Amino acid sequence: MTMKATVHVFLKPGVLDVQGKAVESALYGLGWSGAANVRVGRVIEFDIDAADRATADAEVRAMCDKLLANPVIEGYRVDVA
Amino acid sequence: MTMKATVHVFLKPGVLDVQGKAVESALYGLGWSGAANVRVGRVIEFDIDAADRATADAEVRAMCDKLLANPVIEGYRVDVA
Repeated sequence: MTMKATVHVFLKPGVLDVQGKAVESALYGLGWSGAANVRVGRVIEFDIDAADRATADAEVRAMCDKLLANPVIEGYRVDVA
Repeated sequence: MTMKATVHVFLKPGVLDVQGKAVESALYGLGWSGAANVRVGRVIEFDIDAADRATADAEVRAMCDKLLANPVIEGYRVDVA
């Protein structure tokens, strides 16, 4: 059974998001002062082949811990549909 | 009124996603052969101050065209909530 997995990877709340800060000041420089708390993350989408949704979910979480995210500074959210 | 904007930026379908290919072969190398069609994109989340949701949406789209995405090779999806 093929399912669609979506993984969102973000820096943990305490970690300074320099990319987000850069985007925020660039937006400000372009005249958009209404944007605040900018966070930049990665999103990884792929098709996954697994017996059922729970297995796929567990497998994607293992992928995140091993490769897709750096668990020291990043958190992730997994959606399997 | 402050709303939460989420922007997903992905390479357009015809554009070779080298990062996605790299992730796919890394997953394969780690023993996960069930993952296919890996696409890696960016996600940008921020708070936006606007009169209403339609205004915020239009403003975020303008931000995408000017700064957040490269319209030549990237597409984007905007969610304002």
